[in-house]
Amino acid sequence: MSLVYASLQEQKKMIGHIDAWLEKAVAHAKAKSFDPAVLLAARLAPDQYPLLRQVQACCDTAKFAAAYLSGKAAPKHPDTEQTLDEIRARIKACLAFLDTLKPADFEGAESRLVELSFMPGKVIKGSDYLTEMALPNFYFHTTLVYEILRHNGVDLGKRDYIGSLSLRDK
Amino acid sequence: MSLVYASLQEQKKMIGHIDAWLEKAVAHAKAKSFDPAVLLAARLAPDQYPLLRQVQACCDTAKFAAAYLSGKAAPKHPDTEQTLDEIRARIKACLAFLDTLKPADFEGAESRLVELSFMPGKVIKGSDYLTEMALPNFYFHTTLVYEILRHNGVDLGKRDYIGSLSLRDK
Repeated sequence: MSLVYASLQEQKKMIGHIDAWLEKAVAHAKAKSFDPAVLLAARLAPDQYPLLRQVQACCDTAKFAAAYLSGKAAPKHPDTEQTLDEIRARIKACLAFLDTLKPADFEGAESRLVELSFMPGKVIKGSDYLTEMALPNFYFHTTLVYEILRHNGVDLGKRDYIGSLSLRDK
Repeated sequence: MSLVYASLQEQKKMIGHIDAWLEKAVAHAKAKSFDPAVLLAARLAPDQYPLLRQVQACCDTAKFAAAYLSGKAAPKHPDTEQTLDEIRARIKACLAFLDTLKPADFEGAESRLVELSFMPGKVIKGSDYLTEMALPNFYFHTTLVYEILRHNGVDLGKRDYIGSLSLRDK
C-alpha cells in the first residue's frame, strides 16, 4: 500500500473519529441540559471558524486531497449544514466518496501535478501537495474540532484522537 | 526524495514556524505589557498540557519519528525548560539533530519495524507508525501551540501555520 493511499485511509479513520466525538458532544449536552447546537457555533478565537465550519473543512481537505491525488472529480458538497444531524450527514457523504477510491487510483500520485484554485498559473507536485498542504491542513482542522469540544468540557482524550494502531507481535 | 523523508522535512519546517510564533508571542506580550512567561503556562483545557509542554511534545514527536524511522539513536532532551529562551534553545537542539539526517538514512523506513516504549512485546511497521501515530501526533501538538497563542490574542493566521509551498509554473 502506497504511503499516499495510507495517509488518505488514515484521514478516513480520523473523520470517523470526528463523528464519534460529535456523538459524545450530543451526550454531554444532554447530560448538562444544554442545546448541542451551542457547540456548533463555539470557537476558540473570534476570527476563526466555529466548530461546524471546522468539520466542513476537515471533510473538504480530505475530499480534495483524495480527488486531486487520484485525478478523480470531487463531488460537490455545498456548505449548507446548520444542525448536528446535517453535519453528520456531510461526514457520511464525504466518507462515501473516499470509499470509492482504491489503491490503484493513486498510482503515480506523488509525481502528479496538482492545480490549486487560489493559485492560478501555478501547480504543485503531488508529494509536495500532500506533505506541505493536505496533511498539515487536515490535522489542523481535525485538532480544532477536537479542541473546541475539549475546551467546552466534552470528555475526550488522546485515545479518542489517535484511535487504534496497527500493532504486531514482536 | 521519499515521502517519509519529505514528511520529516516538513516537520522541521513547522518547528521553525513554531519558533517564529514564539517570537511573535514575545512581541505581543511586550506591546501589551505582560510577562511572556504567562503564555508558557496557558492551556485550553485544565487537564491538558500548557504551551511549554506542547512545544516539548512537538520537538519530541519529530525527534523520535526521525530516530525510529532511520534507526539512529535520539539525543536525550530532558524536559527541564522553564523560560521562553530555554524552550527556544530546545527547538534549536531538536532542529540540529534533524539536520544530521540525510535522505539515505530513511531507505527502507516504510518496512522497518518500530518498537514503542509504551507497548512492550509489540512492534509497528514504519509506514503505519508514520501515518497512524507520528504525523497525527505531531500536527496535534503543533496546532495546539498555534491555538493557545491564537486564543490569547497573538496575531497569527493560516499563512503562519502553512508557510511557503513548493509551487511551480504551469
